[in-house]
Amino acid sequence: MAKWEEIAASKRASLLKSIPQEWRIPDHIKPADDVLDVSSFQKTSGWFTENELEITGQTVEQLLNKLASGALSSLDVTKAFCKAASAAHQLTNCLSETMFESALKDAQELDEHYKQTGKLKGPFHGLPISLKDNFHYEGKDSTLGFVSLANTPALTNSPLVDLLKAAGAVLYVKTNVPTAMMIAESVNNLFGRTVNPLNRKLTSGGSSGGESALIAFRGSPTGVGSDIGGSLRIPAAMTGLVTLRPSYGRFPTIGTQSGLAGQEAVQSVNGPLAHTLQDVELYCKGVVGCKPWNLDPGMIPLEWRKVTSPKKLKIGVLWDDGVVTPTPPITRALHETVKKLKAAGHEVVDWAPTGHGELVTILGKLFLADGGRSVEKLLAPVEEPIRPEMMAYKDASELGVHDMWQLQLERTLWRAKYLDRLVKAGLDAILAPTTPYAAVEHDYFKYVGYTGVWNVLDYSAVSFPTGLTADHELDANYSSDQSLGKECAEIRELYNAKNIHGMPISLQLIARRLEEEKVLAMTKTVLDAL
Amino acid sequence: MAKWEEIAASKRASLLKSIPQEWRIPDHIKPADDVLDVSSFQKTSGWFTENELEITGQTVEQLLNKLASGALSSLDVTKAFCKAASAAHQLTNCLSETMFESALKDAQELDEHYKQTGKLKGPFHGLPISLKDNFHYEGKDSTLGFVSLANTPALTNSPLVDLLKAAGAVLYVKTNVPTAMMIAESVNNLFGRTVNPLNRKLTSGGSSGGESALIAFRGSPTGVGSDIGGSLRIPAAMTGLVTLRPSYGRFPTIGTQSGLAGQEAVQSVNGPLAHTLQDVELYCKGVVGCKPWNLDPGMIPLEWRKVTSPKKLKIGVLWDDGVVTPTPPITRALHETVKKLKAAGHEVVDWAPTGHGELVTILGKLFLADGGRSVEKLLAPVEEPIRPEMMAYKDASELGVHDMWQLQLERTLWRAKYLDRLVKAGLDAILAPTTPYAAVEHDYFKYVGYTGVWNVLDYSAVSFPTGLTADHELDANYSSDQSLGKECAEIRELYNAKNIHGMPISLQLIARRLEEEKVLAMTKTVLDAL
Repeated sequence: MAKWEEIAASKRASLLKSIPQEWRIPDHIKPADDVLDVSSFQKTSGWFTENELEITGQTVEQLLNKLASGALSSLDVTKAFCKAASAAHQLTNCLSETMFESALKDAQELDEHYKQTGKLKGPFHGLPISLKDNFHYEGKDSTLGFVSLANTPALTNSPLVDLLKAAGAVLYVKTNVPTAMMIAESVNNLFGRTVNPLNRKLTSGGSSGGESALIAFRGSPTGVGSDIGGSLRIPAAMTGLVTLRPSYGRFPTIGTQSGLAGQEAVQSVNGPLAHTLQDVELYCKGVVGCKPWNLDPGMIPLEWRKVTSPKKLKIGVLWDDGVVTPTPPITRALHETVKKLKAAGHEVVDWAPTGHGELVTILGKLFLADGGRSVEKLLAPVEEPIRPEMMAYKDASELGVHDMWQLQLERTLWRAKYLDRLVKAGLDAILAPTTPYAAVEHDYFKYVGYTGVWNVLDYSAVSFPTGLTADHELDANYSSDQSLGKECAEIRELYNAKNIHGMPISLQLIARRLEEEKVLAMTKTVLDAL
Repeated sequence: MAKWEEIAASKRASLLKSIPQEWRIPDHIKPADDVLDVSSFQKTSGWFTENELEITGQTVEQLLNKLASGALSSLDVTKAFCKAASAAHQLTNCLSETMFESALKDAQELDEHYKQTGKLKGPFHGLPISLKDNFHYEGKDSTLGFVSLANTPALTNSPLVDLLKAAGAVLYVKTNVPTAMMIAESVNNLFGRTVNPLNRKLTSGGSSGGESALIAFRGSPTGVGSDIGGSLRIPAAMTGLVTLRPSYGRFPTIGTQSGLAGQEAVQSVNGPLAHTLQDVELYCKGVVGCKPWNLDPGMIPLEWRKVTSPKKLKIGVLWDDGVVTPTPPITRALHETVKKLKAAGHEVVDWAPTGHGELVTILGKLFLADGGRSVEKLLAPVEEPIRPEMMAYKDASELGVHDMWQLQLERTLWRAKYLDRLVKAGLDAILAPTTPYAAVEHDYFKYVGYTGVWNVLDYSAVSFPTGLTADHELDANYSSDQSLGKECAEIRELYNAKNIHGMPISLQLIARRLEEEKVLAMTKTVLDAL
């Protein structure tokens, strides 16, 4: 065993050990490895009490209301989610750290505060919130899946973590990510692979794929992920959750761990994953209400705005991005959604993918601009081998600042062209695939262009489940013969309708930069039509 | 004569030739070269009519009111400013392009529109506005003082130029800058040096030093400059004008000429220079009212907000920045202003320059990060020699993207520390020198740290004349024996109280990022106290 393998094994063991005996799934009720759908384990195993099930089955909105009225104590809620998260980890490998002890203590203190003052500590009073690995929590690791970062506990919290705690949240687990958060599936050499609780042969997406697995399992009511090329939206779509990719400037990002630290030509942003749109909105309103511009110099002093969705929306539909044709379930969901939107009186027009290929190419170049040195420096200390998904970082060459400036110019030009086209078309939103897939087997997630393009443009985007599910019979009617190129052909070849049968199909609604409130309101309008 | 010198001579000749005979100053009334103060030339030469003088003596506010009421025609106003600008150029070398013919045509059309419809075209209806060289105006050069860019007319307008035209402005001249806009005085190998109309032995500052000379001469009511290290505030301070350096995101910058194109670790911004604070505010309100976020993807959808200055301000005073002690007139003006602010009931505290030296060092490194290649590429086509002020660009080495990312991290860290300190101190604003100088001789402007620090922080800042003037007797009481280092010593050595006697003294009021409305409102409060 190589040194890095020893460290990894020991880290995994101590993670497992941090789960108390009472929350270890007894062997006799643990689903066998070939049981693919473990999402109903809480309900069907008999291992959870009625009270626990009632708690973990609630939305954020319901939990916050009951915590506020005193109908639920934070301690009970936290205990239930600690147990559920423990189960989720044992079945999907979704955690990277646990903070059970301090979480229970925090919950007790919040209950005490409420009892003594009758007041809530903040908008998230008593609510357990899970954290993606990259948010620093004092005393815990933020490894990004790098072995070299194991056992290097954070000295301070990320400002967002401080904000959430001050707002009354109970932080109780951190969740797994892919190496450097730069793979669309959550797999790394330190913790291994997180699997999808809806079907363990499928990926829970990445890079916030520990979060998506955990929340889809109802091991967390809501959690915070991040997104630089699709890392919130891909996991949300793979597991049927809702998420918002905000524009940079609304939710504090400073003081978090990054695989490409200091890269800012395309900004990483963070946001919530949850079961409902309303829950996503509650999180957003709560965080922005804490005035994050006092914590992070990159944030914009912009309160959470009250907006209403225009009665009649004008929506452009992106049927494909000119690079990759979506797989059949996605195309079917687009057709169904368009039909319903038209029936509800909205104006729907086709939206050409002008510039999409170029923007996605630029994104790839920006990630590799330092010649992979940032990644290399994180692998080197323990001689961790580079994963096959990350070979582009090994092969990359240092771009140089002069050429970087030219690339930034090119990016800005495309941003300007896209804005101009959008303004002239008078669109309220763009309806698009979140990914080419409804769901996909491990190792088969090959293309992030449908999410990444909006990162380069810094647009606000919601990924939402349409209520439709992949159906190998229905979807057969939507297969296309047209291959748009090499990437497109590969994806078509790997597509297996039967393997993903029954999985939820998500789509993406995109609005302009800094239109977070509007895109959420419009998503409600779209969901109402569906 | 080298090739580049021929091109430059020919460009200068054609610029001069673009001034019609009627606006060439007759030899017999042209001040001799040793007449230093030419700022009253319009009033004293007898060459301007009463009507012309009445027009060029007005504020923007007065002009807009009279244009709106029909008391003045745009044609008359434009003619007066064309003549005044022509005179300004002949006495200070402040222009780089003239658009007299099209401007008069635009003015006539605006008058016609007003006559026919009774309506104004926009918030700047009929108002001449001058443009710094870097804003593209179709058919005219944007050279940045590089010989290679002479005779390469712009194919389209900068979006800001389109916005201003659509808002009714009459664009009639472009103004001189230093090479690449990267020197604090306005001198280059193409057009030569712009001098200060208040004292031609002194600099009008840079890089918007063509603007400041022109406006100080009353050859323009207001003009647009840009600022990446002090380029609006330094020229404003050297000539007794008011300016706002906005944070990035309020005023469209896209599609303009840049010496370091694609550099964005510290963003260039643009804003107005004018004689009064009210005029600066009118410009800002007008431009933001045109929703520039529909034109430039970098702009923030943030309307111009109504704010009122807090009744009792808490102001931190930056007596020095830890690197360079301001020259005596500046220190005197700080003392006087503090005295008056306290007398008016405001809270004034000392503000330590923590991080200033580091932030200014970072700024310098960012400018040189491409190893000077951008500048080199603009010099090379005509073998233009590099100017002595620009030698750092010749000596620079390519930093590489990896190290650039580390530098950006370092910058972000300082931004966070500064914000934290500011929030904890509860300051409304910082009062600081705009530059170490009240005014300074050509070639002697040596330090931009007092402006540049706010560029790295992206704070909103106003430079305003205090109403005080340099006084070699009074200022003698404020000389300091303490040298803070090499740069400080050099500045002290070059300081000559007599040479700048009588020049206006400006200071800077700084608020947080994106607090443009507040910093303008607070500057009014400070001016009221003075």
